[in-house]
Amino acid sequence: MKITILGCYAATPRSFTNPTSQVLEIKNNHFLIDCGEGTQVQLRRNKIKFSKIKHIFISHLHGDHFYGLVGLVSTFRLLNRESELHIYGPKGIKEIITLQLKLANSWTNFPLIFHELTSKDPQLIFENSKVSVTTIPLKHRVYTNGFLFREKEGDRKLLIDKAEEYNIDFALFKSLKKGKDVVSEDGELIPNHLVTDDPVPPKSYAFCSDTVFDPEIVPLIKKVTALYHESTFLEDQAELAFPTKHSTAKQAASIARMAEVQKLILGHYSTRYGKIELFRQEASEIFPNIVLADDGMEIVVE
Amino acid sequence: MKITILGCYAATPRSFTNPTSQVLEIKNNHFLIDCGEGTQVQLRRNKIKFSKIKHIFISHLHGDHFYGLVGLVSTFRLLNRESELHIYGPKGIKEIITLQLKLANSWTNFPLIFHELTSKDPQLIFENSKVSVTTIPLKHRVYTNGFLFREKEGDRKLLIDKAEEYNIDFALFKSLKKGKDVVSEDGELIPNHLVTDDPVPPKSYAFCSDTVFDPEIVPLIKKVTALYHESTFLEDQAELAFPTKHSTAKQAASIARMAEVQKLILGHYSTRYGKIELFRQEASEIFPNIVLADDGMEIVVE
Repeated sequence: MKITILGCYAATPRSFTNPTSQVLEIKNNHFLIDCGEGTQVQLRRNKIKFSKIKHIFISHLHGDHFYGLVGLVSTFRLLNRESELHIYGPKGIKEIITLQLKLANSWTNFPLIFHELTSKDPQLIFENSKVSVTTIPLKHRVYTNGFLFREKEGDRKLLIDKAEEYNIDFALFKSLKKGKDVVSEDGELIPNHLVTDDPVPPKSYAFCSDTVFDPEIVPLIKKVTALYHESTFLEDQAELAFPTKHSTAKQAASIARMAEVQKLILGHYSTRYGKIELFRQEASEIFPNIVLADDGMEIVVE
Repeated sequence: MKITILGCYAATPRSFTNPTSQVLEIKNNHFLIDCGEGTQVQLRRNKIKFSKIKHIFISHLHGDHFYGLVGLVSTFRLLNRESELHIYGPKGIKEIITLQLKLANSWTNFPLIFHELTSKDPQLIFENSKVSVTTIPLKHRVYTNGFLFREKEGDRKLLIDKAEEYNIDFALFKSLKKGKDVVSEDGELIPNHLVTDDPVPPKSYAFCSDTVFDPEIVPLIKKVTALYHESTFLEDQAELAFPTKHSTAKQAASIARMAEVQKLILGHYSTRYGKIELFRQEASEIFPNIVLADDGMEIVVE
């Protein structure tokens, strides 16, 4: 599981910082999460192939989270994309994008499929054989969702040497991986656990931005492998966090601690702070395992 | 008169090139012309104060000419702008921008005034005491206008030494600048031309992008001081220029020659060409005085 941070700063793109966007690589899926202005350039700079992006998740309709979307869709068109593109985001996103394509007389030559979200409860919005994606309802100034990406439990690990030792026919290996007991060529019943190991524990990633401090999300993200939680402010500006419906680094760390996550990734920094290291200092008093996101960073989650 | 090229490449923003946007500084007005994705970052990089931008002219509703507009408007809002912002562009532009502001629940706290264009004839769309702006109808795949910026003739240049020599009262200097004859303190009628010089000849700038080769624009841009004319392609791709309604460098130069302009600025290059110098080579066979626009370039027109 790898997260490439394309942008992780709040409010507006600047000369050297980008608004929110990241690519989650999980079980061979490349999910684009949020798409601030300049995301297509950041994809190029980070050498992520456009054709790998098949699903885009938009948390909310503030500009720093989606103003790059229409440009990316248009560029897909110019590159003669043919494969489906799925966009998941708040109701209204379809009208915004299609209005612009219509006025430019530039309909896409690939299927562009919108999944508009309106539910205030967690909702399964994507599922394939390897991964599921569920919304995490967040509290912000407009309708907002986080997203929980969860690997499904994989096959058991086959111990080839053991399987050969027990004289098990090759044709039964698939059954072994699925956890079944099998009969060897000698007619002996071989319990599964003798020739397989437990599968790699499934990993999970919760993306939570933008949001006010909200312990109601804790049960939804309990024990995830990695949590991205916004920390727009430090505690010195806590009085700004609540009315603007943002969080401080300390609040993000409190959520991480309550949810017992393995790793906390901080981002969505206000550019008023000179050094992002300050966010780590504040959060690490509450929660130990912190990664400070920064534009262009690749975070590999083992 | 100064033109700052924020972006001058066709189709999509890339790692090191930007789509169309430029700032024309003329008689203390700062006009933003087109606003591709990333324009607000390019304004910052080129140290152009956001507060100076009061009028934005959008040629057409293809993404590489206006996808940066909604982000710029939003940033003006975040910066607590109070002064009016005027946007001139094709019908539909108001709906696109206001729909996005509405869904973000982010109305501007400054007056945002749209001037939607539909006429297929040249139209005076802006005028103050120093400058006028007229549309140049262009032929492209969607409704498109170029823009002609024209300085008004200024005051005559007062020759202070001469005026003192003829013993003219200071209170009459304003009349002299306006071209009037005056009576000296000795009671003598002083013809204006003895104490003033002709005013600086007014300058003019024609922005023409995107457009197919179209000699019909020649009378509209006759003898302008500087012409920006797109040259998306070279002649080797001339068969692409017509169906996509673009021009080649040679065609741009032909327009410049027919219109007898003083200076031709080329831009809107397709990124298929490695070196933009190729555009100069092709165009200079037809027209001598060529400037190759490039991102970040300042072009001062004397």
